[in-house]
Amino acid sequence: MKQSLYLEDLHVGQKFTSGTTLVTEEAIKEFAGKYDPQPFHLDDDAAKSTLFGGLAASGWHTAAITMHLNVSSGPPLAGGIVGGGGEIHWPTPTRPGDILRVEGEVKEITPSRSKPDRGMIVMRMETKNQNDEVRQMIVMKLIVPRRPAATA
Amino acid sequence: MKQSLYLEDLHVGQKFTSGTTLVTEEAIKEFAGKYDPQPFHLDDDAAKSTLFGGLAASGWHTAAITMHLNVSSGPPLAGGIVGGGGEIHWPTPTRPGDILRVEGEVKEITPSRSKPDRGMIVMRMETKNQNDEVRQMIVMKLIVPRRPAATA
Repeated sequence: MKQSLYLEDLHVGQKFTSGTTLVTEEAIKEFAGKYDPQPFHLDDDAAKSTLFGGLAASGWHTAAITMHLNVSSGPPLAGGIVGGGGEIHWPTPTRPGDILRVEGEVKEITPSRSKPDRGMIVMRMETKNQNDEVRQMIVMKLIVPRRPAATA
Repeated sequence: MKQSLYLEDLHVGQKFTSGTTLVTEEAIKEFAGKYDPQPFHLDDDAAKSTLFGGLAASGWHTAAITMHLNVSSGPPLAGGIVGGGGEIHWPTPTRPGDILRVEGEVKEITPSRSKPDRGMIVMRMETKNQNDEVRQMIVMKLIVPRRPAATA
């Protein structure tokens, strides 16, 4: 069983690092075919003449991979990883052969004023490859439950 | 052939509306199984006891569907839909049976100072269902090529 972290268990500056996942050319093309069918995400030759200069994953694929890493091996938040939104940037595109991990840090913790059973945290999460190139940076608002009184 | 819009063809306030797509329970579970395997995205019964109150699509699924709508029937930008990042919010989750469309508006147009062949635009895009419920709002920076001199 994973440990479950409630709002009370978190502090600003707390860091988490996920496991890793290899991004294959096949996975890039499969995601793109379903959700972002543009030449630079589907065909290496076609991608060479674009500003990507070669096959590049959809930014939304990088986002989806990041979510999977967070769910499977990121911060074990009680109630799961529930985001209301955030700011996302892709400084460089994910490439075939990238081995990605997520490094997260708690930046803010705010108990809800109207809902005593929860709070909101802000996490900054960087998705990096094996050479520490940043493929995605996201500052994300997450809803985290407070520890129920009976078990406090 | 789709018309291709260069930076010079765009103006602030210009609007685009995509086609529509139906989001099925199967599609929600398939995306979640691959990228966001949490109970409230995978199982209607398990979702009932969570803050979602029933099966809800991953926000990243809504984002991916939005991208697909933009690529297939959104603004026909020359060079494709190439985003560097943006701000994303999910005011309500996508539900099974939602028929989604994207309504976009150009908010800013900025020619690049360093690269004379392109510029950056900011688009605000709302993803709505058949009842005009907003499932996603994104303010996105996109790179758009300028019209090549020879064809100006």
